[in-house]
Amino acid sequence: MSSPSWLNIHPESPFSLANLPFGIISQQSSVARRAAVAVGDYAIDLLQLSQGRVFDDEPQLKEHSGVFSEPTLNAFAALGRCLHQQYRLFIRDLLLEETSKPTLLKGNPELQRRAILPLQDVITHVPMAIGDYTDFYAGINHAYNVGVLFRGPDNALQPNYLHLPVGYHGRASSIQVSGAPVYRPKGQMLPAPGAKTPVFASSKKLDIELELAAFVCKNNDQGMPIPVNDAHNHIFGYVLMNDWSARDIQAWEYVPLGPFNSKNFATTISPWVVLADALEPFRTSLPGAPGNGKLLPYLQQGNADIGFDIQLTVDLVVERQVFRISECNAQHLCFSFEQMLAHHTITGCPMRTGDLIGSGTISGKDETSLGSLLEMTKNGQEPINPGMGLTRMFLEDGDEIVLNGFAGRSGGRVGFGDCRGRIAPART
Amino acid sequence: MSSPSWLNIHPESPFSLANLPFGIISQQSSVARRAAVAVGDYAIDLLQLSQGRVFDDEPQLKEHSGVFSEPTLNAFAALGRCLHQQYRLFIRDLLLEETSKPTLLKGNPELQRRAILPLQDVITHVPMAIGDYTDFYAGINHAYNVGVLFRGPDNALQPNYLHLPVGYHGRASSIQVSGAPVYRPKGQMLPAPGAKTPVFASSKKLDIELELAAFVCKNNDQGMPIPVNDAHNHIFGYVLMNDWSARDIQAWEYVPLGPFNSKNFATTISPWVVLADALEPFRTSLPGAPGNGKLLPYLQQGNADIGFDIQLTVDLVVERQVFRISECNAQHLCFSFEQMLAHHTITGCPMRTGDLIGSGTISGKDETSLGSLLEMTKNGQEPINPGMGLTRMFLEDGDEIVLNGFAGRSGGRVGFGDCRGRIAPART
Repeated sequence: MSSPSWLNIHPESPFSLANLPFGIISQQSSVARRAAVAVGDYAIDLLQLSQGRVFDDEPQLKEHSGVFSEPTLNAFAALGRCLHQQYRLFIRDLLLEETSKPTLLKGNPELQRRAILPLQDVITHVPMAIGDYTDFYAGINHAYNVGVLFRGPDNALQPNYLHLPVGYHGRASSIQVSGAPVYRPKGQMLPAPGAKTPVFASSKKLDIELELAAFVCKNNDQGMPIPVNDAHNHIFGYVLMNDWSARDIQAWEYVPLGPFNSKNFATTISPWVVLADALEPFRTSLPGAPGNGKLLPYLQQGNADIGFDIQLTVDLVVERQVFRISECNAQHLCFSFEQMLAHHTITGCPMRTGDLIGSGTISGKDETSLGSLLEMTKNGQEPINPGMGLTRMFLEDGDEIVLNGFAGRSGGRVGFGDCRGRIAPART
Repeated sequence: MSSPSWLNIHPESPFSLANLPFGIISQQSSVARRAAVAVGDYAIDLLQLSQGRVFDDEPQLKEHSGVFSEPTLNAFAALGRCLHQQYRLFIRDLLLEETSKPTLLKGNPELQRRAILPLQDVITHVPMAIGDYTDFYAGINHAYNVGVLFRGPDNALQPNYLHLPVGYHGRASSIQVSGAPVYRPKGQMLPAPGAKTPVFASSKKLDIELELAAFVCKNNDQGMPIPVNDAHNHIFGYVLMNDWSARDIQAWEYVPLGPFNSKNFATTISPWVVLADALEPFRTSLPGAPGNGKLLPYLQQGNADIGFDIQLTVDLVVERQVFRISECNAQHLCFSFEQMLAHHTITGCPMRTGDLIGSGTISGKDETSLGSLLEMTKNGQEPINPGMGLTRMFLEDGDEIVLNGFAGRSGGRVGFGDCRGRIAPART
């Protein structure tokens, strides 16, 4: 997939021709939200392509191209994976040096001016109308590390952990796109370990969670589970996700119904949805997965490579200095997104196009590859020293976190772009 | 509010002139969803009233009456409580024997034929597009009873319980309207207490939860909490809710992130939204509430009567025989809906018009007033004997549960109508 393009695409770009992720954009000069594809340093405005009649020779693509004028990708996602792939390959062809359709875009400078926008000039938005958002807990090293911190190494993983993808319902309204500020939350917390009476304060343990997340593109009826080996047809694509967490609020509130206020203030996602088909070449096994033999039949997948080989990074940006605080890989999950969907719906829970499914925090096995400050600092006991004399236990106002991730090699990278958020002081 | 109407309204009707709850209806002969008001045994079709120009003399009501052609009440709700009350009082006037507008409806038999529909002939729908659904746990006797079952009487209530309204994010897509079937969920559970390995089966502990729930009608910006003493302006109205729960699935899955599959298969609500202003006359204190002196300032309300005096009943219907299995009152909550909203948003969590907030299971203090079978049967140890030789631990296929509730006296009742669901066998 590293064929040359007539567009100038840097070989290290996450948005190579092998990728072509979809998003929702607007511009200061053109505020209507519409669909776009990211390639190199550009966003291709799909509404302009549609109005420029580039899809008109392909009856199926022409028929559905109205979806690109929608302010979310839900209608496009609902077309199903076959059409996603057809549009993606068609757009790839348009951009190839050796395009089979040279008159449509390569030889049409007027349409290029209207449709090919510098990425830095476009505003990106949450790409889907998200009905429900679920966050799983399938990062096995993260679950183990957190278990050791709170229960010791002998009982680190709960008895159910390797039998089912543990998850909880999150707050859909709090999902925001990369770049939006994250206001420091206030709430109830205990003033010291063992205290009996809570105090009201700004969170002093504001943390990150490095996650991969999938968007759903196909509904199931209430009462009808999605079979695990059909679940891939229900997955539109993937984004990076930072599930910001207030650990002090979480510790006080989470028994017995799970995290609530500690996570409902903001969750940031990357703006470009990497289509499921673009990630298929990077399938790999999940070394921590329990394996079919240890799973109930409804979770047994027919293939061994149920995960993705995606390199992930976490950068902390303080006063314009960038400090890399983690390097990790999406292989450190112990359940696949297909298993998450099968488990989510085994009771008959209806999923809808636009629903978002988070993986849970992804941590590697050593201390350079952790997905949360909770783990890096052992719950605020040992500061990290990212460089230049800086130390951190948890996030301070003004700190910015940038998640990044990509699969593949130079010239054919399939990446997500930044998933960033800066901590702003509490608004009130 | 018990003034006579020219419509025949039974004095025991939950839909007296003091009520006038709003819902969304369609008919077999007229499938477009639109807004309606319930009164006596009738639904007043608000689209017909609007098209019949009954709102035209009141500029504000005329201006906004387009909302009644929407397929949900969200646009109506977003108008705010002042306009809700203006529409409600206007419609009440139309229906009074001594109406001040005799020509509009009372003297207009042609419009009556089009707009006044027998309730039994209309199909009701989930009245709001629900973005997020949150369920609290503010039924103090329920929390205590469940705590006694699982931890004994000395630690029945968790340390945080009386400091904050404990809650969790629920599954919005699984909310259904009264009358929709409830398919028995399947899932993972332990075959016996103390077992180490789960089995896959249909739930054998399918339970009910008797709840009151509120719809939100006003957004708050991300980062901006709703002050507790302004929260009433964010509440559109109330419905009854049955948060069906699979106790065997719940027991295995809920540590550490709370209930998930055990509750995501179905939650049933009553179809008619009782407007907040219609319930205001029935404000009362909450005897189990911690009181302002024990609460952090952000939860302290300026008035003492923060609850509602609503009589609640639970009926079990088996082969057309109706057995009353509980009689309770909404006073048995220990936090108000205003406190729930203030707590929900104290971190800056954004609420949106249409969001649903459940109270948690409401149980009284004695065994005739419990809101779940879990409590009635002590987790399946002691069967209930509702009559005619029938016994139940949990729900069986074909069982139907009907929740009901009302405030006020004969002739002026403010009630919800049925919140019913019948257990159907698992679909697969």
